[in-house]
Amino acid sequence: MEQLKVELGERSYEIKIGYDILSKVGQYLKELNLGSKVMIITNELVDSLYGREVEQAIKKAGFEVNIAKIGDGEEYKVLDSAKNLYDQAVNANLDRSSTIIALGGGVVGDIAGFIAATYMRGVNFVQIPTTVLAQVDSSVGGKVAVNHPQGKNLIGAFYQPKLVVADIKVLSTLEPRQLKAGLAEVIKYGVIWDKEFFHFLEAKREEILELDIKTMEYLLKRCCEIKAEVVAQDEREMGIRAILNYGHTIGHALEAVTDYQRFVHGEGVAIGMVAAAKLANKLGILDLADVEKQEQLVKDFGLAVSFDALKINKIIKALAKDKKVKDGMIRFILAEEIGKVVIKSDLPHNIIREVLEELGGER
Amino acid sequence: MEQLKVELGERSYEIKIGYDILSKVGQYLKELNLGSKVMIITNELVDSLYGREVEQAIKKAGFEVNIAKIGDGEEYKVLDSAKNLYDQAVNANLDRSSTIIALGGGVVGDIAGFIAATYMRGVNFVQIPTTVLAQVDSSVGGKVAVNHPQGKNLIGAFYQPKLVVADIKVLSTLEPRQLKAGLAEVIKYGVIWDKEFFHFLEAKREEILELDIKTMEYLLKRCCEIKAEVVAQDEREMGIRAILNYGHTIGHALEAVTDYQRFVHGEGVAIGMVAAAKLANKLGILDLADVEKQEQLVKDFGLAVSFDALKINKIIKALAKDKKVKDGMIRFILAEEIGKVVIKSDLPHNIIREVLEELGGER
Repeated sequence: MEQLKVELGERSYEIKIGYDILSKVGQYLKELNLGSKVMIITNELVDSLYGREVEQAIKKAGFEVNIAKIGDGEEYKVLDSAKNLYDQAVNANLDRSSTIIALGGGVVGDIAGFIAATYMRGVNFVQIPTTVLAQVDSSVGGKVAVNHPQGKNLIGAFYQPKLVVADIKVLSTLEPRQLKAGLAEVIKYGVIWDKEFFHFLEAKREEILELDIKTMEYLLKRCCEIKAEVVAQDEREMGIRAILNYGHTIGHALEAVTDYQRFVHGEGVAIGMVAAAKLANKLGILDLADVEKQEQLVKDFGLAVSFDALKINKIIKALAKDKKVKDGMIRFILAEEIGKVVIKSDLPHNIIREVLEELGGER
Repeated sequence: MEQLKVELGERSYEIKIGYDILSKVGQYLKELNLGSKVMIITNELVDSLYGREVEQAIKKAGFEVNIAKIGDGEEYKVLDSAKNLYDQAVNANLDRSSTIIALGGGVVGDIAGFIAATYMRGVNFVQIPTTVLAQVDSSVGGKVAVNHPQGKNLIGAFYQPKLVVADIKVLSTLEPRQLKAGLAEVIKYGVIWDKEFFHFLEAKREEILELDIKTMEYLLKRCCEIKAEVVAQDEREMGIRAILNYGHTIGHALEAVTDYQRFVHGEGVAIGMVAAAKLANKLGILDLADVEKQEQLVKDFGLAVSFDALKINKIIKALAKDKKVKDGMIRFILAEEIGKVVIKSDLPHNIIREVLEELGGER
């Protein structure tokens, strides 16, 4: 098992990464001295696969356990679901010393985290991410949120978990589409921070897609290390943390204009990264060879690098609603080379349009 | 004008207290460098009295201003109103650098603060409290929340404002019931922290009820100083901050069992303080003379010290749902003498019942 610490002063916490470690969750909670009541927030599918194992482990450690479920999909990550979860937390008599566990992917983690952050002004929060995306990205760093009809994650908070438990075994039941989508965020870490890691991904394509344990242990740990390092420097995204949004500016817009129905998050990010690479190249800050490497790796992991049947104007409009807009300026994270990015907020609209058209956008 | 600082490291902020200072709000915002867009959250009545003055002051300083209104009363401090306010924030194109201003009493401050804490994971927040209660209590210290049908402030966060502006002039339009209710929280500061201040309140009863400027300037400043000192020691209520809940345990329960329709917050707190004094006396930790002094001062400010037509069982049940419950134990703040309190969580239920019966509760 691998273990690493996210250094955030009194809000520091550990990430445990290993194979077949769900049965140890109860013991981990006990070691952290986390109250006496636990509510697991999950969805039907994940509950049927791993709910009993986690529930039993926690009960065995002496906790009272309740389970609350939300629908599976981004469209359930909304205030109405949150309202329902608050009701369940009240009915379960959760108090300030209780713990909310997110057992699931990014959607479950984000909304469960939002409930944990706001129920009684904050209770203990533990993440058990069950998708690649959640294990390498959304479960680490404390961003929690629900969506607003006009923007993803528009309602949220920064709220750190007390613990993250990433079990590689659970990835074996992940549908291939979700596995691939998660790998988009993995590629992101290579581009923004670590050229060596990018090369590792190029070299280990097959092992990764086959979920080889050793390979995945290293992959998950390295992604979490990078994320932890960035977050430790800038917990509330005042500066450098924004680089974690590489590929997300256009990615989010694509998700938003298709009402979160067509692209899963990683698919949006994959196209968004290709878009960001092309933008950087057009602005003369990134070589064409590095654009192509990114595009190739995205393709290698089975992800689309373009889209169709979407109006450019609609995408531009969605961009302007993004949280990353500051005083009216749309911010982009752009690579100067693989492993190094900069933040730019003064991009000419015509270049954005040009790139969206190359990717398949309609005038 | 008086000015004091709430010391919370990078989240420190100033409280400005004075007579007729609303017109300076724009200038204050400018000095703090708070983005370019402002949304004022207020209610119909406060807006009609002070909305234009604040709006003009802010516009003059170069900000773009939007106004969003919620209904007047605790029953509007709920998720549905929050949803509506999020929509208005989106429609006003507020971004991460924007500022939300609460212009109103505790209800407006609490929900506006909750929106500021959660919109885009947190935007700038400024409090312009227009009631005594909000000026001495709810606007200082960063507690923001909305109510849940089963508990007040059950959904919320700790989120500090960038500035608090307390104008004594606006208190002249406050209805007498609200003025008196606010004074319950003022008495609280004397009991939990400062015997001298309690004596000052006993001596200055008339000046206070007549809103004498010099008296009120001192009163507001001293209350804010005490609150700031407590909050600086314990921002997230892990320990000592709980003493600010003196009178609130039973106070909240009374509000809850009457669906927030019968008592305004301070009225609940007033009875709650009398209850806490009686409890402390029955437990042998507070002299009868000090119980009577508290009861007298509450009466002097025109507040009720008892209630009728409420079942004790219902109140006890509401107590168990309170946020202050920890691992099943109801916590009480009890005075050992005026100016000094302790936190107790192991009170026998029969003593609580006895006191509730003395206050008018029905078996």
